[in-house]
Amino acid sequence: MSITKKATVFVRLKDGVLDPQGVTIQKALAQMGYPDFLSVRSGKFFELEIDGNASDIDRKINDVSSKLLANPIVEKFTVEKA
Amino acid sequence: MSITKKATVFVRLKDGVLDPQGVTIQKALAQMGYPDFLSVRSGKFFELEIDGNASDIDRKINDVSSKLLANPIVEKFTVEKA
Repeated sequence: MSITKKATVFVRLKDGVLDPQGVTIQKALAQMGYPDFLSVRSGKFFELEIDGNASDIDRKINDVSSKLLANPIVEKFTVEKA
Repeated sequence: MSITKKATVFVRLKDGVLDPQGVTIQKALAQMGYPDFLSVRSGKFFELEIDGNASDIDRKINDVSSKLLANPIVEKFTVEKA
């Protein structure tokens, strides 16, 4: 049976990978009068709506996450289903 | 009393604001053999570590979210505390 499901894929840089955007934001905050922000790490997420049967959907989300949404060399992803 | 807290700020485009990145990803997925992804919306998030006292921290996070992390014209943000 085909259903429509929502899922969110969160993409983060792997631990140890430098995050220039986060570093820049952290420095900007300090200059703007917010020195208390000790660390900023940036990431992205994708809200997906997907058609299919339940078992297919999980596999497809993992497929597209590792193929297109995240770069597995430097990024890791997690999936949260609605 | 000063404490260190973690929080994540999620930034999304407001409803109705066109998301070219999401549209492009959705089309790319269809061409890659995944036509079942009906919609893709992209967003970003920032993982923060912040020093301060509890009441200050909330105010500061809201301040920097609307001043630097999100563009309130086209984006909205939500805060999740660890």
